[in-house]
Amino acid sequence: MSLSKKLGAEFVGTFWLVLGGCGSAVLAAAFPDVGIGLLGVALAFGLTVLTMAYAIGHISGCHLNPAVSVGLMIGGRFPAGELVPYVVAQVLGGIAGAAVLYVIASGQAGFETAGFASNGFGEHSPGGYTLTAALVCEIVMTFMFLVIILGATDERAPAALAPVAIGLGLTLIHLISIPVTNTSVNPARSTGVAFFEGGWAISQLWLFWLAPIVGAALAGIFYKWLGSSDD
Amino acid sequence: MSLSKKLGAEFVGTFWLVLGGCGSAVLAAAFPDVGIGLLGVALAFGLTVLTMAYAIGHISGCHLNPAVSVGLMIGGRFPAGELVPYVVAQVLGGIAGAAVLYVIASGQAGFETAGFASNGFGEHSPGGYTLTAALVCEIVMTFMFLVIILGATDERAPAALAPVAIGLGLTLIHLISIPVTNTSVNPARSTGVAFFEGGWAISQLWLFWLAPIVGAALAGIFYKWLGSSDD
Amino acid sequence: MSLSKKLGAEFVGTFWLVLGGCGSAVLAAAFPDVGIGLLGVALAFGLTVLTMAYAIGHISGCHLNPAVSVGLMIGGRFPAGELVPYVVAQVLGGIAGAAVLYVIASGQAGFETAGFASNGFGEHSPGGYTLTAALVCEIVMTFMFLVIILGATDERAPAALAPVAIGLGLTLIHLISIPVTNTSVNPARSTGVAFFEGGWAISQLWLFWLAPIVGAALAGIFYKWLGSSDD
Amino acid sequence: MSLSKKLGAEFVGTFWLVLGGCGSAVLAAAFPDVGIGLLGVALAFGLTVLTMAYAIGHISGCHLNPAVSVGLMIGGRFPAGELVPYVVAQVLGGIAGAAVLYVIASGQAGFETAGFASNGFGEHSPGGYTLTAALVCEIVMTFMFLVIILGATDERAPAALAPVAIGLGLTLIHLISIPVTNTSVNPARSTGVAFFEGGWAISQLWLFWLAPIVGAALAGIFYKWLGSSDD
Repeated sequence: MSLSKKLGAEFVGTFWLVLGGCGSAVLAAAFPDVGIGLLGVALAFGLTVLTMAYAIGHISGCHLNPAVSVGLMIGGRFPAGELVPYVVAQVLGGIAGAAVLYVIASGQAGFETAGFASNGFGEHSPGGYTLTAALVCEIVMTFMFLVIILGATDERAPAALAPVAIGLGLTLIHLISIPVTNTSVNPARSTGVAFFEGGWAISQLWLFWLAPIVGAALAGIFYKWLGSSDD
Repeated sequence: MSLSKKLGAEFVGTFWLVLGGCGSAVLAAAFPDVGIGLLGVALAFGLTVLTMAYAIGHISGCHLNPAVSVGLMIGGRFPAGELVPYVVAQVLGGIAGAAVLYVIASGQAGFETAGFASNGFGEHSPGGYTLTAALVCEIVMTFMFLVIILGATDERAPAALAPVAIGLGLTLIHLISIPVTNTSVNPARSTGVAFFEGGWAISQLWLFWLAPIVGAALAGIFYKWLGSSDD
Repeated sequence: MSLSKKLGAEFVGTFWLVLGGCGSAVLAAAFPDVGIGLLGVALAFGLTVLTMAYAIGHISGCHLNPAVSVGLMIGGRFPAGELVPYVVAQVLGGIAGAAVLYVIASGQAGFETAGFASNGFGEHSPGGYTLTAALVCEIVMTFMFLVIILGATDERAPAALAPVAIGLGLTLIHLISIPVTNTSVNPARSTGVAFFEGGWAISQLWLFWLAPIVGAALAGIFYKWLGSSDD
Repeated sequence: MSLSKKLGAEFVGTFWLVLGGCGSAVLAAAFPDVGIGLLGVALAFGLTVLTMAYAIGHISGCHLNPAVSVGLMIGGRFPAGELVPYVVAQVLGGIAGAAVLYVIASGQAGFETAGFASNGFGEHSPGGYTLTAALVCEIVMTFMFLVIILGATDERAPAALAPVAIGLGLTLIHLISIPVTNTSVNPARSTGVAFFEGGWAISQLWLFWLAPIVGAALAGIFYKWLGSSDD
């Protein structure tokens, strides 16, 4: 597969992750009386990955997330030479998804971004959690996300079901941690919406690059041991 | 498989999509205290497709949607000669599904159609979204629906799981966009219920034929590039 | 597989369907503030079938429902000679499931059966739907349930996924029709809880034997045509 | 696979079960207006097992639960010699998961453990159910959990889907029984959070070791008969 197609797939996949996941949060979570709530948002994020993993997994591997690319690289599953172009495509896709969401959302009278599903900590955490809680939460959640990815795509696991495990794994992570940081585990997702929210979302963005990448890298190292064959 | 069986399958499948998806919205979404909400409706729409894809996929391919048939035709997966009969069977199935729903729903004292799960924009958008927002939303959502369908049924993807990806993809689309247009991405679904709601639903129906077909056609072109083998 | 093991499997499977499906309704649907609602009940019913289909499908075929046994027999998939023992095992399993539910539920101070998740119409329909609406609804829902079962277990469909299609098909049926009849599509399920509710639930039980069996039989005939090979 | 890797897998898997399942309950279940409720918690518990079964099933078998290890041992699927180290790894993983949850949860102003998702009966049952109801419920729920596990991992069932059956089986069990005992069916999960809640949670812990193990052992004996080949 040519690199341009891989990057096209990563772009459209991350576009979908942000439009679908953040879109469900912005448009439908708090709809009066029948809103989908955090459970619906958690399901939406997971289904963006599940659907794209079946649709483009055979093209780019469907990372959709710089932390995933780093974790796979450290785990020995992804060539370092493709890391930078993948991350660029993911960030651009995330911004494009947020842009389309902005166009749709602003078609409602009285629209305000109201956070625009950005990630935050301290006073910008949905539940008011501290920087330390946010940092621990994002590191551990991304660590476990990469353990799921590395394990479910291990050659001893059934390949056809890996998208179910990984997509619903992201749903699970959101079921736990939306109240803490609005859940990132994905720097491209955080960057896409922060670009439109601006202000505090940009100034807190460092944590949502740092913590997911640290968690993913640790998981890459851990699974290299856990999943290796015994001699 | 004979054309008559294919058309029988498309009819019963689209019947189920409208009865199940719109039925959950009309009968159960706002049931007092324990209603299923937009999350339940989103799940119901997706499960109509998931269940039918396993039940009749081997007979007709389980399109259940004129936009899907167009997108598959442009993507090179469906013969142009069967397009018109497929669309006719889908629209008739959609009307039949809405008719049975009408019979059941009208068995409650004080029944009024109250929109009957029709699709709309402007003052008939659930959240009051403009025509432009509705148009962009339906085009992009159908585009992504067809990317999921074309990708998940690619010969390099695991065929047994395509119905899961496609069905839950439709759930995801509803989780995002019910507030904007009540979610169509399917002209047969829109026509089925508009037939019984009449009035505004009929007069706004053009958008729910135009936008899904445009989005699907663009996806057919896009995936022809994205999914093609390199030389 | 010996008949005694098949009947043991049908007994424990129907026990689980009633304990799990009706149990979620009785114990958890309306729990204060965080109750699972009709969406949770719909999911629970579907998951009883999904889990049992993987656990005992290779033993008894996992019917768990007299209407399913009838539909499969008419569709040519199940020997008539085993129909009566299957139905007896299903009904006994359903009563046993309701009995254990009664023991657990009555362990709460102030317990009253309050319907005990029984099926009903007219004044005993959750939404007050008429006998005609209930009859149409149960016939059509069981018809579609059997189309899903017959299609998803067709030799051209992926066998490993049939339990997902069938289980989530039952979830879908509940998402639509709980407000109409509390959803039966299964005479054993209706009988199990009616046994403990008594009174009106017993006197309306005829409909929940008649309608599911009629719907299932019609589906058996329909799929014999739809799914047959062309000559 | 070496025992140390198996134990590492059981540790991290049980860590995830407690952090994810109990974490969703503590952090997100009752979040104002858009909380995930018991339905979200039920889904979260199931998805911890589903994701881990794909990620580490090929390493340790993914028990994550002393009752599961006992049931598999009695069912003839797990060597007795590994039981004690598995159980120790599971309990330590459960405590570690609860510890990380404590660090995150305490990052919110005004934090109190408020039960910390511990299991209980009588006045500590969420719905005030008696000791007898709790005992029956935990025994029957664990019995059925093991029937699902033993059946879905039977060599005649599709191995690739067993994690779906088992994970969603645990979701189903929670949909039924959270109101009764807060749902254990897993002594390691109960012990992990009781360690931090202390007091009543420790004094009631005996039931959540006894009942799951009894239910699991009975299922091991039952499935040995049900699933055996006829001669």
